[in-house]
Amino acid sequence: MSGRQKEELHEQGINLLGNQNVQYDFSYNPGVLESFENKHPYRDYFVKFNCPEFTSLCPITSQPDFATIYISYIPDIQMVESKSLKLYLFSFRNHGDFHEDCMNIILNDLVKLMDPRYIEVWGKFTPRGGISIDPYTNYGKPGTKYEEMATHRMMNHDMYPETINNR
Amino acid sequence: MSGRQKEELHEQGINLLGNQNVQYDFSYNPGVLESFENKHPYRDYFVKFNCPEFTSLCPITSQPDFATIYISYIPDIQMVESKSLKLYLFSFRNHGDFHEDCMNIILNDLVKLMDPRYIEVWGKFTPRGGISIDPYTNYGKPGTKYEEMATHRMMNHDMYPETINNR
Amino acid sequence: MSGRQKEELHEQGINLLGNQNVQYDFSYNPGVLESFENKHPYRDYFVKFNCPEFTSLCPITSQPDFATIYISYIPDIQMVESKSLKLYLFSFRNHGDFHEDCMNIILNDLVKLMDPRYIEVWGKFTPRGGISIDPYTNYGKPGTKYEEMATHRMMNHDMYPETINNR
Amino acid sequence: MSGRQKEELHEQGINLLGNQNVQYDFSYNPGVLESFENKHPYRDYFVKFNCPEFTSLCPITSQPDFATIYISYIPDIQMVESKSLKLYLFSFRNHGDFHEDCMNIILNDLVKLMDPRYIEVWGKFTPRGGISIDPYTNYGKPGTKYEEMATHRMMNHDMYPETINNR
Amino acid sequence: MSGRQKEELHEQGINLLGNQNVQYDFSYNPGVLESFENKHPYRDYFVKFNCPEFTSLCPITSQPDFATIYISYIPDIQMVESKSLKLYLFSFRNHGDFHEDCMNIILNDLVKLMDPRYIEVWGKFTPRGGISIDPYTNYGKPGTKYEEMATHRMMNHDMYPETINNR
Amino acid sequence: MSGRQKEELHEQGINLLGNQNVQYDFSYNPGVLESFENKHPYRDYFVKFNCPEFTSLCPITSQPDFATIYISYIPDIQMVESKSLKLYLFSFRNHGDFHEDCMNIILNDLVKLMDPRYIEVWGKFTPRGGISIDPYTNYGKPGTKYEEMATHRMMNHDMYPETINNR
Amino acid sequence: MSGRQKEELHEQGINLLGNQNVQYDFSYNPGVLESFENKHPYRDYFVKFNCPEFTSLCPITSQPDFATIYISYIPDIQMVESKSLKLYLFSFRNHGDFHEDCMNIILNDLVKLMDPRYIEVWGKFTPRGGISIDPYTNYGKPGTKYEEMATHRMMNHDMYPETINNR
Amino acid sequence: MSGRQKEELHEQGINLLGNQNVQYDFSYNPGVLESFENKHPYRDYFVKFNCPEFTSLCPITSQPDFATIYISYIPDIQMVESKSLKLYLFSFRNHGDFHEDCMNIILNDLVKLMDPRYIEVWGKFTPRGGISIDPYTNYGKPGTKYEEMATHRMMNHDMYPETINNR
Amino acid sequence: MSGRQKEELHEQGINLLGNQNVQYDFSYNPGVLESFENKHPYRDYFVKFNCPEFTSLCPITSQPDFATIYISYIPDIQMVESKSLKLYLFSFRNHGDFHEDCMNIILNDLVKLMDPRYIEVWGKFTPRGGISIDPYTNYGKPGTKYEEMATHRMMNHDMYPETINNR
Amino acid sequence: MSGRQKEELHEQGINLLGNQNVQYDFSYNPGVLESFENKHPYRDYFVKFNCPEFTSLCPITSQPDFATIYISYIPDIQMVESKSLKLYLFSFRNHGDFHEDCMNIILNDLVKLMDPRYIEVWGKFTPRGGISIDPYTNYGKPGTKYEEMATHRMMNHDMYPETINNR
Ligand SMILES: [Ca+2]
Ligand SMILES: [Ca+2]
Ligand SMILES: [Ca+2]
Ligand SMILES: [Ca+2]
Ligand SMILES: [Ca+2]
Ligand SMILES: [Ca+2]
Ligand SMILES: [Ca+2]
Ligand SMILES: [Ca+2]
Ligand SMILES: [Ca+2]
Ligand SMILES: [Ca+2]
Ligand SMILES: [Ca+2]
Ligand SMILES: [Ca+2]
Ligand SMILES: [Ca+2]
Ligand SMILES: [Ca+2]
Ligand SMILES: [Ca+2]
Ligand SMILES: [Ca+2]
Repeated sequence: MSGRQKEELHEQGINLLGNQNVQYDFSYNPGVLESFENKHPYRDYFVKFNCPEFTSLCPITSQPDFATIYISYIPDIQMVESKSLKLYLFSFRNHGDFHEDCMNIILNDLVKLMDPRYIEVWGKFTPRGGISIDPYTNYGKPGTKYEEMATHRMMNHDMYPETINNR
Repeated sequence: MSGRQKEELHEQGINLLGNQNVQYDFSYNPGVLESFENKHPYRDYFVKFNCPEFTSLCPITSQPDFATIYISYIPDIQMVESKSLKLYLFSFRNHGDFHEDCMNIILNDLVKLMDPRYIEVWGKFTPRGGISIDPYTNYGKPGTKYEEMATHRMMNHDMYPETINNR
Repeated sequence: MSGRQKEELHEQGINLLGNQNVQYDFSYNPGVLESFENKHPYRDYFVKFNCPEFTSLCPITSQPDFATIYISYIPDIQMVESKSLKLYLFSFRNHGDFHEDCMNIILNDLVKLMDPRYIEVWGKFTPRGGISIDPYTNYGKPGTKYEEMATHRMMNHDMYPETINNR
Repeated sequence: MSGRQKEELHEQGINLLGNQNVQYDFSYNPGVLESFENKHPYRDYFVKFNCPEFTSLCPITSQPDFATIYISYIPDIQMVESKSLKLYLFSFRNHGDFHEDCMNIILNDLVKLMDPRYIEVWGKFTPRGGISIDPYTNYGKPGTKYEEMATHRMMNHDMYPETINNR
Repeated sequence: MSGRQKEELHEQGINLLGNQNVQYDFSYNPGVLESFENKHPYRDYFVKFNCPEFTSLCPITSQPDFATIYISYIPDIQMVESKSLKLYLFSFRNHGDFHEDCMNIILNDLVKLMDPRYIEVWGKFTPRGGISIDPYTNYGKPGTKYEEMATHRMMNHDMYPETINNR
Repeated sequence: MSGRQKEELHEQGINLLGNQNVQYDFSYNPGVLESFENKHPYRDYFVKFNCPEFTSLCPITSQPDFATIYISYIPDIQMVESKSLKLYLFSFRNHGDFHEDCMNIILNDLVKLMDPRYIEVWGKFTPRGGISIDPYTNYGKPGTKYEEMATHRMMNHDMYPETINNR
Repeated sequence: MSGRQKEELHEQGINLLGNQNVQYDFSYNPGVLESFENKHPYRDYFVKFNCPEFTSLCPITSQPDFATIYISYIPDIQMVESKSLKLYLFSFRNHGDFHEDCMNIILNDLVKLMDPRYIEVWGKFTPRGGISIDPYTNYGKPGTKYEEMATHRMMNHDMYPETINNR
Repeated sequence: MSGRQKEELHEQGINLLGNQNVQYDFSYNPGVLESFENKHPYRDYFVKFNCPEFTSLCPITSQPDFATIYISYIPDIQMVESKSLKLYLFSFRNHGDFHEDCMNIILNDLVKLMDPRYIEVWGKFTPRGGISIDPYTNYGKPGTKYEEMATHRMMNHDMYPETINNR
Repeated sequence: MSGRQKEELHEQGINLLGNQNVQYDFSYNPGVLESFENKHPYRDYFVKFNCPEFTSLCPITSQPDFATIYISYIPDIQMVESKSLKLYLFSFRNHGDFHEDCMNIILNDLVKLMDPRYIEVWGKFTPRGGISIDPYTNYGKPGTKYEEMATHRMMNHDMYPETINNR
Repeated sequence: MSGRQKEELHEQGINLLGNQNVQYDFSYNPGVLESFENKHPYRDYFVKFNCPEFTSLCPITSQPDFATIYISYIPDIQMVESKSLKLYLFSFRNHGDFHEDCMNIILNDLVKLMDPRYIEVWGKFTPRGGISIDPYTNYGKPGTKYEEMATHRMMNHDMYPETINNR
């Protein structure tokens, strides 16, 4: 069997994937994130993570909130390992913050981890009081064409909002 | 628990969220809107509110109208608090006005409250006489790139109308 | 043009249909309901009303609630006129009551108006606190096969709940 | 090419199918209906017509109404020819009647034409005043098991009303 | 109750809305269209009418045709009143013309009525002979940026045709 | 690799599956059907074939017709091989017959081939003249419980017709 | 405003609804459930709760699980108050148990609280290892027709599984 | 009745529409195509044909292929008559060619017939061997802005492929 | 944390869940199945497994086949552990057999493992040659009411086949 | 029958299509890919392959992964034959690699085979640990406008992520 080898991944610091003794931390912990090397840095390409099982707490009422989060990025040298991303998102389970702040924090932590060319994070929450909130934030590496890309995508963001009826 | 603190929000004038003794006012009242500080003003990002429970009255016949309203904005210094937005939308319950006017009034009130970089409001009403009406209006801060953004989004608005069959 | 004639309907007491000077009453008022004669009493048949524009108030918090209501009945001698049904449902606009009570009240009022062979009312509300409530109630004329029909339909009610995700 | 032959159909009185000089009559005319012989009377089977292009007039306001009609039957000796059914439905274009009456008239006319073992007619109209009306009526040949079938299907009719939101 | 007043609308020539004695004219009649004043001429905004109940006749066979029509425009000084638009579309009920011609006629009549900044009309018809036809036409005020807008939207029209299977 | 063996299938007369030199016959030919042995005759179980690529000709106009056909059966000793079923359905390509007759012919041919315990055939055609036709026919082995099963399923057939709008 | 009164509900022991100082308990706690009196005990009717925001932990790996839960019941004397139901479901947030056990525990706790005529609980979980699990359990008051109803509904449960593709 | 007249169409060479004695040719025949005059050459507008009933043969195996074809064009002086388009597409019924070649042939034949300003053809075929093929081709009149339009639309073609699961 | 304990499960022979050193066997191996004890044997309840990632081989051509499998059962004393079910389904990856045989083999293996009160298995495969095959098989413990339940569910199986278009 | 001829394809090296003795290789093998000549090199056009039956292995755990892959390209001189593409995708069945690497490998192999003007590959995988991963990669011939096209499409990639709920 060709492709990625366990050994090379372990050398890059990937310890969570395939490890059964993982402990789950339900308070905010960006330290759990792990990265590995991009094998195709000669080319721009997108990786999207669909994360429909996100939950956090309201900072005022401590009531649980629920969201589906979509994270898309163009890697540079490092890529985020998906099991560590899962554990990172678990760490919001007992964290209290506004929806808008959670999305910006996730963006900031992933930029810090990977230093990607481009990244965006879109959260779609369930309603409270009959209204749901969907924050969208993005980032392009400053001084590169990806910064313009971030501006371009913000300018053209979500011109066709999905139909919502709270059911 | 980290994140936003109740105290800092109260200092910013947030009184409705988590307050059970709220009175509902069903006649038009923009005074109920409250705002809080944007923690990420160094970056453009979108916040969308999905509001499928809007109702107002026809100004001629006084018959109830129903709509889903989508409000999206890029904050500058101030952000609208979502519970106060709920109460504001409740205040149209006994207000009589044309669909097109309601959407422009909501836009104007939110611009006045937040002075956002960019904002748009899209209402999708149920039909009367077999025809439904969907007004869309937007705004970008004059003299900035967001004004061009508003023009750009108006030029490209809704080129794929959703399929409607009145059922 | 054949079919129903205006004159015969007016004689049966139909005054609201085609009348532009109707006043809307937003507090509970079953007196607005009007009926007309069934031209096909020799046969059982169903009439369903789809009513997606229902709104009432929470009896504890006075907050607006929203529902789609489905009303189905087999007429006997009298049938409910649909414009008067619209006005009757409008009259819940400022009425405060639990979802379960509203559905039973509507059923009772329509039974009183029409004395139908069979009738059922199903309300599907939008969520509060992440949970939505859907009451279903029915009635068959006592001592007839329609009473058994009501039991049969209750026994087999909603074995395939619709998928709900609060969006 | 085997199968039905033009000649045998013409002998049975089928004149409209394949005839280009058809005149369209937009006032109620059951006389346009034509039938042909059932080749499989040794067996019960269903034929369903999906008719999404039905329009008639309101008997009070003369305003156009629109519906999708579903007609299903088990033939006995005669079957309704589908082009003549189309012309028959066209003949309601300028006819004014309540939705409930139109569906029962269609049922009665098809029973008279074909004397079927079983038949049912379900109309699904677009809303007026926010409420749509869906009448359902059926018939089984009296004194046969199909009469019980009609009762059975009425008892179990539409326990899962389709979701309606007037859009 | 604030908002639009009946009196100001009547002064602007709005007579059909809220008038129960309206006569329906089923032969082509652009004269029935009425307009009122735009209260927000300081801003570009879109108004869309969803019209799923359009019917006309085939000019060759006189057979009824059915379509859903989507009309979107940016108003200048005048706006089309929606009840008069309904009556105007009714007036095609006995009019015979090709689908492509109907859509251009509607565009021309609305341009003449309102002199809008921008307008577009998209008809989506049911199939005849297994093929359905969807014409799309638009207009921007000559010599303004809206003329370029019309060209831009035509260049980018419908790059994702909806899935059609004739059922 | 366990399971069915090529050799045993060839001995049972299966020649078409895996044979590249198959000739396609586009005129009605039930002789192309092949069967193999049921390995689980000790139990009732259903096999359904979904066949969305059926086409035949109108017997009067020779115009092509299109349908999706659903065939479901409970095998007894013999089962129909699916590649031979494909070739059999191809053989209707130049065959002219009414929709109702085609479905009954398919049922009869499969009963003759397999002598199944139970079988049903449902065709769903595309519209002509705005109306589509969906015949449904079934069969249970006479004198067995499967005959009652056929009656039971006919009595309860299609009480929830799928939504059709000809698009 | 008529309908349910705050006072009568408080007398029945309803303390959570409309109370802002609620504490959230994230370990299993059936004691939080509250009930109120059924005003319509003279009639069978259903109440359904749609609960798409359920989360618990895997008892072996402590990894979070997510489900939508549908709870339907016919009340006898007592009814469950929906805000207390919300708090009860929150109390599974840090509880570890198999999906099948959670659904039976919820059923048992609600039977104990309300002593309903009939109740059923259906959980639909997200997949682990590519497979998702959906337990369904029900109960009818022993020695009554509702016990037979429970058997009847179990016999006929979910004969049309929803389409699942893990996306 | 106003609009297009039969006489003017016959003078332009339209013979197939409304003609019942049409012969169907099932081998490739572009000669059957007919055109008529564009009444609105002063304006760019789109006409789309939805054609879900296309079938041809595989050139290697002679097995039938099935597709939905979407044809969109901006007319110049001539327009294709839709009944002749139907007959032209029928003529592929016994034609053997690769999917990619069929779509380019259709484009070439329609360019030759109409000399349109712009045209595009998109075929969406059913799968063979688990893979389906969807060719898209377009054309703009050389040396005009429509040639740039063709390039622009090719550059931006289908960036959101529809979800396919072969069911 | 209450609920199921790791220790009790290990004592019952559950070794695969939470074990990272699992080896995947891609040839048919029912020996990998593991069971644990039902904590609620006093009640009938259903457990459904949704398995959209099933793949096997064609026994004649060795070409891969793909299916979604739905398995539903009422447990008696033993229940199948879901990770072992996953591994069992993996073991068909290089197994060659007809669709109908695979579904009956899975049913037989699970009956042997658990001796359930009732069980059913429904496979829905992707098409080959334009036709897809969906076998459904079930079982009730002989001599109990569950045997009748199996007959009842077979009699009423799939009277509403899902819409299939091979896309 | 006109169109492509078997002989010309065999001369171009097409051996797999219509050949029944194909051996399936389940370990990564780009050598199985075959190409044929583009008959329309004078024009840009797109060919899309929808491939919902892709499966590979996780490089760390050897657990099977499943995806739908969408491949779109503009041919230059050579085109990939679809049966050889099927066999190539089969060859990943026992190959272990990360999702991101698989998509880039497929892109590289097809560029090598065909030297296309433009190509893109989008994989959409099923979730592991509640998160699914969708890589997208593309390529334009260096030094041509297609290189800019690749950049343009990457900049505008997937601004409307499909809704994912893991069911
Ligand atoms: Ca709420
Ligand atoms: Ca939903
Ligand atoms: Ca709807
Ligand atoms: Ca809420
Ligand atoms: Ca929704
Ligand atoms: Ca709709
Ligand atoms: Ca037709
Ligand atoms: Ca449809
Ligand atoms: Ca459709
Ligand atoms: Ca998993
Ligand atoms: Ca989904
Ligand atoms: Ca599909
Ligand atoms: Ca499909
Ligand atoms: Ca195939
Ligand atoms: Ca997982
Ligand atoms: Ca799904």
